[in-house]
Amino acid sequence: MPARALFFDVFGTLVNWRPAIARTFSSICPAGSSERTALAFADAWRAGYFEAIERVRSGHEPWRDLDILHAELLPSALGAVGAPDLSREAEAALVAAWDQLDPWPDATEALSVLRRTHIVAPVSNASFRQMIAISRHAGFVWDVILGAQIARQFKTHPAVYLESAAAIGLSPADCMFVAAHNADLAAAKAVGMRTAFVARPQEYGPGQTEDLHADPSCDFAAADLHELVALLERNPS
Amino acid sequence: MPARALFFDVFGTLVNWRPAIARTFSSICPAGSSERTALAFADAWRAGYFEAIERVRSGHEPWRDLDILHAELLPSALGAVGAPDLSREAEAALVAAWDQLDPWPDATEALSVLRRTHIVAPVSNASFRQMIAISRHAGFVWDVILGAQIARQFKTHPAVYLESAAAIGLSPADCMFVAAHNADLAAAKAVGMRTAFVARPQEYGPGQTEDLHADPSCDFAAADLHELVALLERNPS
Repeated sequence: MPARALFFDVFGTLVNWRPAIARTFSSICPAGSSERTALAFADAWRAGYFEAIERVRSGHEPWRDLDILHAELLPSALGAVGAPDLSREAEAALVAAWDQLDPWPDATEALSVLRRTHIVAPVSNASFRQMIAISRHAGFVWDVILGAQIARQFKTHPAVYLESAAAIGLSPADCMFVAAHNADLAAAKAVGMRTAFVARPQEYGPGQTEDLHADPSCDFAAADLHELVALLERNPS
Repeated sequence: MPARALFFDVFGTLVNWRPAIARTFSSICPAGSSERTALAFADAWRAGYFEAIERVRSGHEPWRDLDILHAELLPSALGAVGAPDLSREAEAALVAAWDQLDPWPDATEALSVLRRTHIVAPVSNASFRQMIAISRHAGFVWDVILGAQIARQFKTHPAVYLESAAAIGLSPADCMFVAAHNADLAAAKAVGMRTAFVARPQEYGPGQTEDLHADPSCDFAAADLHELVALLERNPS
């Protein structure tokens, strides 16, 4: 049986968040005139996000919208690169930068091709609101938006995968999870989904050391989304 | 301020359910060889649905998926036209007919035009699963699927309208509800949404007596969705 639905991670897998966040930081904050500092700011903000979602997953903090989380984490990311606090307007502009991320060059077209044969849905930690904004900016067309907001929990908590499948009447075995991150794929695999790794070896810049290759447990491994399209065409079952 | 989101009723407003249900009944059940009986069957099934959702809204029965509701109500709809019980396969085919409804001729194109300027979302009593199927069949493209499943309640309960808006971070005042049914529009208006009536004077056949015209409380009244597109272009605020 072919997977009836393809579930997609978004940040990193479909959109290239790092340069977009760095660019907005540069346009807002004098400290961002150095590209290196601007990228370090983006990395620090993202690192804070990973720590924060772990506090939610482990039950130490309640789930909340990613916009709220990003706003809470901003002062610490600014501090990490020695940047001063910003005005409310500048803070809001930086949080809104997460709505306007550039798609990786293959993403929009490949999604549209994959939608001909599969139900396609984002299963991201973003809210519905944010996913609408990201998708409009990038030209992504979905059948339905699923993900963290369905379960009021963040990936890689199993509830996000399980409740996303259940929300459209599918069992995990009917779904294939597509991501550039092995931890995300391992969590999807653990609840019974098939998995497809798509390499994004520049997500964290040229020095990236993690997620360069698929873990052996992945059902498919592709160098990009065009290769995933070809792999799924050749292996419909 | 223009409405940022347009919320759409689907059954009757965007898709023409009656002939599609009658056609499937005719193809499955000998009693349906009479077109009059087949249409009466469709009407009886729909009437049962309205009674059932009222039992849910009033708290006498728990919310459940429309597929389950349709299956529960089928024997009584068959009985209403003197048709015998059907096999499980035939019952499943009739329930599945609600996934394959023809769009009204203006619906697919008008939705696509309206999506250029507004977030568009179905706010229907259908499940996410069913809305995906209906939308794929009809060629509807949405930003997000909202509706009954968000609130685990049926329209015209206010929770469905309020929780649909809240799910994408909007206040009701940011939303306009589009429907061919005055009761649906009145419920949306009651929670603070703007409303647009679209006439579907043949939804129940040539003898239709209800919902031929918009109630005076509607903000817009259009003869079809193309006219609504023109009205919203001329009245963006």
